[in-house]
Order: sequence, then C-alpha cells, then structure tokens
Amino acid sequence: MALTSTILKERSLLGLKDLSRTEIETLLDRAAYWEQQPDKVIPVLKDRFVANMFFENSTRTRFSFEMAEKRLGAEVLNFAAAASSVEKGESIYDTVRTLESMGIHAGVIRLKPIGLLAQLAEKVNVPLVNAGDGNNEHPTQALLDLYTMRKEFGSLEGLRVSIIGDIKHSRVARSNLWALEKFGAKVKFCAPESMQAPELAEEAPYVTMDEALKADVVMMLRVQLERHATGILKSPEEYRFQYGLTEERAAKLAGHTIIMHPAPVNRDVEIDDALVESPKSRIFPQMRNGVPIRMAVMERALRL
Amino acid sequence: MALTSTILKERSLLGLKDLSRTEIETLLDRAAYWEQQPDKVIPVLKDRFVANMFFENSTRTRFSFEMAEKRLGAEVLNFAAAASSVEKGESIYDTVRTLESMGIHAGVIRLKPIGLLAQLAEKVNVPLVNAGDGNNEHPTQALLDLYTMRKEFGSLEGLRVSIIGDIKHSRVARSNLWALEKFGAKVKFCAPESMQAPELAEEAPYVTMDEALKADVVMMLRVQLERHATGILKSPEEYRFQYGLTEERAAKLAGHTIIMHPAPVNRDVEIDDALVESPKSRIFPQMRNGVPIRMAVMERALRL
Amino acid sequence: MALTSTILKERSLLGLKDLSRTEIETLLDRAAYWEQQPDKVIPVLKDRFVANMFFENSTRTRFSFEMAEKRLGAEVLNFAAAASSVEKGESIYDTVRTLESMGIHAGVIRLKPIGLLAQLAEKVNVPLVNAGDGNNEHPTQALLDLYTMRKEFGSLEGLRVSIIGDIKHSRVARSNLWALEKFGAKVKFCAPESMQAPELAEEAPYVTMDEALKADVVMMLRVQLERHATGILKSPEEYRFQYGLTEERAAKLAGHTIIMHPAPVNRDVEIDDALVESPKSRIFPQMRNGVPIRMAVMERALRL
Repeated sequence: MALTSTILKERSLLGLKDLSRTEIETLLDRAAYWEQQPDKVIPVLKDRFVANMFFENSTRTRFSFEMAEKRLGAEVLNFAAAASSVEKGESIYDTVRTLESMGIHAGVIRLKPIGLLAQLAEKVNVPLVNAGDGNNEHPTQALLDLYTMRKEFGSLEGLRVSIIGDIKHSRVARSNLWALEKFGAKVKFCAPESMQAPELAEEAPYVTMDEALKADVVMMLRVQLERHATGILKSPEEYRFQYGLTEERAAKLAGHTIIMHPAPVNRDVEIDDALVESPKSRIFPQMRNGVPIRMAVMERALRL
Repeated sequence: MALTSTILKERSLLGLKDLSRTEIETLLDRAAYWEQQPDKVIPVLKDRFVANMFFENSTRTRFSFEMAEKRLGAEVLNFAAAASSVEKGESIYDTVRTLESMGIHAGVIRLKPIGLLAQLAEKVNVPLVNAGDGNNEHPTQALLDLYTMRKEFGSLEGLRVSIIGDIKHSRVARSNLWALEKFGAKVKFCAPESMQAPELAEEAPYVTMDEALKADVVMMLRVQLERHATGILKSPEEYRFQYGLTEERAAKLAGHTIIMHPAPVNRDVEIDDALVESPKSRIFPQMRNGVPIRMAVMERALRL
Repeated sequence: MALTSTILKERSLLGLKDLSRTEIETLLDRAAYWEQQPDKVIPVLKDRFVANMFFENSTRTRFSFEMAEKRLGAEVLNFAAAASSVEKGESIYDTVRTLESMGIHAGVIRLKPIGLLAQLAEKVNVPLVNAGDGNNEHPTQALLDLYTMRKEFGSLEGLRVSIIGDIKHSRVARSNLWALEKFGAKVKFCAPESMQAPELAEEAPYVTMDEALKADVVMMLRVQLERHATGILKSPEEYRFQYGLTEERAAKLAGHTIIMHPAPVNRDVEIDDALVESPKSRIFPQMRNGVPIRMAVMERALRL
C-alpha cells in the first residue's frame, strides 16, 4: 500500500503555489470533461475509500467533496472534529495517522493550525487533499474560481481580477493569487489596512475601491463578523460603506464584469443582497463548478 | 436539469393540506407495495442524489428517511445545521440553494422558521420533501399514521380519531387533521387551553379527556417539557394527571381502540411507561411503517 | 425477521467474558482471512443494514466499524447522540428500539450506563455488537489486541501481559483480562490505588511498575485527564513520573517486548511522545488490525 513520495506528491493537492501551470490546466480540462458526463455515478473510484476529515467547521466544502467522491463511486467516510480538539495540533496528527492505518486510500482535510498540513504530508502515506489550510491555501476553491473565469472569458491570460476584503486571513485570496499569476492574469487587492497582508504586496498592488472595480472579475471575500470584537472590523455597516459591493458600486461595473464570492456570503455586508443572484453574479455557478473540479482532484488522488 | 414548476409540484411534498385524497391514497398504496418487497436494496433510485437537510435536530426522522432512500438505492448526503445557524432564515435559503447547485436531485428538509419552506419551494428547482416544517405540517408523519390506521381498520371513512396534547405547536396534529378530513374521518382535539389552536376549532371540536377517550384511535402528542419555563406547562405531574394517557384511563378504552404517538415519548408524562409497548399501542409499528411510506414519497420525488 | 434468542446470542457480541476460547479463536482466524483479502469491497453483507449507534463520543471506533462494514458491502447508517441525551438510560432504549423497528439488521452500540447493554440485548431482536459498554467490556478492542499479540508471538499461551493505568474505569482492561485468561496468558495489573479495581484482584495481581515492565506485552491505558478534578489524578506530570512509560523505562524493556495502547494516547502522560511510533510500539498496527477484526465480528452478526 505504501506509495513512493514522488507518487504521493503527484497525487496530493496541498496548494496551487507549487503546482505548474500545466498541472493546473490538466485539472481544469479534466473538470470540463467531468462536467460533460451524464448526471450519474461513474464508478472510476469504485473500491477506493476516502476520509473527509474536517477539523474546522464546513458545510459546503464537505458536501461538495462528498458529491464529487460519490459521483465517482468512491466509498466515503466523514469525520468532523469538535471545536475543542481542533486546537491541539498533535491530536490532529494522531487522528490522521489513525484513519490512515485503517486503510483509507486518500484523505481530504481541513484544518486551522499553521504549517501542520505540510508536516502531515511528510509523514502520511496516502494522498492528502487540502480542503482549507488555515490562512495558507484553499486550492480547490481557487481551481473552481479559475474554472469559472475560464468558462466566462475563454482564457485567463491578461485577465484583470480584483480581490476585495480580508486578504490577510484569506486562504482563498492566496490560492487565487498564486494560481492566477501562473496564467498571466493581473491581480489587484483592495482591503482596509488592518486586513492587508504585507507579504503579498509585491505580487499584487493594493488599490482603492474605485480602482478595484475596474476589472473583469470582482471577487468579494467573506468578512469574519467575529473580528468585530478584535477591533479589526469596526462595524458591518461601516465595512459595507467602505468596502462592500453595494448596488450603487455594482452599477458602475463594466458590462462584461462578473461578480464572484467563495460563499457563504454575508448579505448586505460585503455584498448587497440584491446582487447575490443578479445577472452579473457567478456565485451559485461557482458552487456548481466545485463538483467537477473536485471530481478531477479526487480522480487524480485515487484513480488506479 | 431544470424541472417545470408543475413537475416540481407533483414531485415535492410540502404538506397534505394541498394534496387530494387520490394523491394520498396513491402514496399509501405504494407504501403497501414497498412493505411487501423483499428486505433488501431495490435500486429504483440508483444514481439519484438526495440531501437530507436538517436545520432542526432529529434522530428518528432523519434515520427513517435515510433507510428509505438507501433501500431504494439512492445516494444519500446528510447535512445537519448547528442550532445557532437555525435562527437565520436567510442562511437556510443560501444553504439549500448551495446544495441544489451542487447537483442533488431532491432535498428532504426540516426547518423551524414559519413560512420559509413555502418560499424555498418557489425558488428551488429540485423536489423538496417536508420532514417537519415549524408548527405547520409534517406530512410523512401523518402519512405513516394514516397508513397505520388503514392497516388496522381497513378504511379511514368515519374513523373517530382523538388527538390529545399540545395541538397549538403540533405539525403532526395539523397534517393528520387535514389528511383525515379528506377521508371522512372524525377528528377531535383535547388540550389545555394554553395548548389549543383556535384557528383549527372549526375543523375539529375540543372535547374533554373523557370524551376524547371514546375513539377508535387515541393519538397522544409529545409534550415539550421545555415549555415549563414559559408557563404553558405547569408541571409534568400535573400534565399527566389532567391530560396523560395513564393506565387507569387506558383501561377504559374500547377493546378495538389503538394508541398512537409520533415519538419520541415522554414516558409517564403524556403516556404511562407500561402502555408504550402494550398490546393496544401501535407506537413501534408506526415507526416501522415510516420506512415504506418514505420509500413511496422519495420514489415519487425522484424516480425517472 | 424475528431471530430466535439462540441465534441472536450467537450473532451478538456483548463481551468476551461469556465467549469460549474456541469462539474467540474463530474470530481471530477469520480476521486473519479478511486481512489477506484484496483491498476492496467484498460484498458478503450486501443488502444488510447496520446502525452505528454511539451514545458516547468516539472517532476511531466508529470509523473502524464503518470501514469494516463498508469493506463488506453493508449499508451503514450512523447515529451519534448529543451528550445531553446520553444520561437518560430510557431514551437510549427507545432509540435502539426505534432504529430496530425501522429495519436495521444489526446494531453497533456504544453507551455509558452500567448494565443497560445487557438489558437491551434481552429486548432487541437484532444482533447487537458492543463498541464500548461503560466500564464493563470493549470486546472488539480486546480482540484486536489479542490478534496483534498472536501475530507477534504466534501463541497467547503463557504470554506475560502487563496492563498499566486506570484499571478501575477501563473496559479495555476487563475485556483483555477475561479473554487472555482463556488462552492461558498471565495478566498483571499496575495502577495507583485510586485506579485499582479490587474485584479483579483475584484474577490478576497488582504489581509495581518495575515488575510490570518485565513482560512480553506492556499495555498502557489512556488516563482520563478530566479525573484530575475528582482527585483521582494528581497531575499529569506526577502520573507520568510514577506510572508513565517514559523513554527511561522503555529502555529497560526486554528486546522482544512490545508496547500497546488502545488509543487515543496522551503523549508525554501515560506514554512518552517518542515511543508512540518507536520500533517496539504496535499502536498504529493495533488500529490497522481493528478493521479485519471488525469485519469478522460484523460478518458473524450479519451474514446470511
């Protein structure tokens, strides 16, 4: 059962930073293939056991992975840890090793502690798929975002993408940035100072809200309303006034510009309620695209 | 994938109020068919994906739906929301739309906010099955109740059914009332004043406990012991004394009268412990009947 | 569907105390058979429905049972009760009877109330498999422990096994003791006085830590750190100093001695971090062995 570390690296998906443009394109193309298949179970992953291990709460992402896995005929076991045990990095390691011992063929994992996923990947002998790694990467989200953009515009080359919101704490922003760069897209950030990530400033400029709206893709990030207590967020109303995609601001967008958001949305905070399902919005299509993307990712992890 | 709204209405099950007697009979007959089938998976729903979405806690109902779905070979994904997010009607809408986007073919849903299910059904493009809708309806429970009564007495015509307990907050009472009316059964209610639903008084008279016991079916409702704090419930002992089906009261029932309860029971509150599995009780048979009923309902929702 | 009580007893697994040596050997041999099978689904339990009913939290055990059940092609439904309802023995009874009514063919159950499992087994008409019964037994854990020892040493006859830790509250210790006795192994206990079980003293002597380390198998038990509040546990550091398997102590073990632990471990409390994955440790192999053991147990419960 032990896979060589080269094979493990080729089958795991820890982030997009270390993937080549070609590897990403292969996944996008394969997702396009899966999207065209009949709407039924296609059992290329028959007899393969996957553990969805969520050490941080999630609804949508777990559900999307489970759909993808079951569409491919895999056997799926879900594991969700109580919030209390999330803190202890060591018990995450033991849990993952335990599930590995029991014979799973791949693990999908979401966890909070910084740097732990990389350590796990060194020690665990089955492919691991990152379903959200602290503030670092969320590669399947970015893949589905790229897939959505490519479907819209045909190519990512030269595409102007503005990412607006809490860049500092966003794994979605990082994965998108690092992937879009490889395709020659032009990423701009827009965020209040307390939500900027200085270490990314060389890769993408921080611009004003007005400047950010001049883009092909306006990607709004979810505001963590809990950050209110920490002083990072003044008030939802104030945030909406300064950085929200209001109906007024949306009216100024170019005709071809699309609105994206990784969801779940805070309606009337970072994005106005009326915009979520408006013609410019790709928010629900993004979620739909997540399934073929994750089919491609899980096939890569598991197919014999 | 988009179904016409007529087909959606024919496949959804939001309540029994708007179903015709013929439609209900078709479901009961089909449940009888399923009950006779061999005890194994009969994959008429192969390749169909169902999401069981419980925005309110449940054990039995979710389990019963899952049994039914898996008996028919469907692919099942479970989703249970933390109590905290239950309050926010809007996030329920977003969650349901999200799971829909991911490609489920039908959703089973339990939720609390009044009126939300009807709104969802207008916007969502897959059949929805009501697994408990606030204080409004709980149609699969009433269907299994009717099925149990019909099995016992051959016909529902003229059947005298007493429903005893917290009518005001009971979706079980409403669904049973509205369905039984269509079959010419005679429903009576019995409840303390604080637990009466005045808007139903025209459809079924409120009677005394002694009067209620003169019936073919005595259906006890679960008391929400939490209502103690609100003053609606004085004390479990007092409730049992006034409205409980005690062994003394049960001794006065006619020979052919059966006892029903939607479960879970509060033993020695609304019903005495010794009665739960007594010969007159159909409480566990009700739960058994829930599976073929839900097979009929899910088949109607999903079969191609 | 009703099974005779003899068949039920032969298919249930409530504990190892009442199993014969031959019955245990049959399970171990069958596990060895399953371990040799190809790593895929072997559907001998096709169409069989199992409920995993956990009235007490568990990750590893539930996951291990689910792996085993799915490897054999069974249909699996999981049920986990909130901590709050665990207390009420009566609701556990109602829940189990409810799930039984819905047509499951076997139940795997973990629960806390003392004596309840035995009562349930009298009343329920499907095989029950004990996945952890209060402080009484945890038979599948002991079976996988015996399996691990037999694999290591070829035979259990005369094997010297030291069980170290909170014997008093350990169902793992009891199941191991009662099973090992049947094979002529020699069990010794080592525990602080507050963690001793006087009623077991006739079956296995309590020895000093130095004496306990002279064994073929050193089995460490998990310390419940919560017992700190009750005064049973002074401090983790103090416990480690007196009863922990430290690196210093491990260095004194005989060359052939193996270290076992039912997991999850408290690293650096009952066992030093560096020992968990050391060459002498069989901790992760134990977890791996749990799957074929549970395949044998579930096959016995369910195969037609």
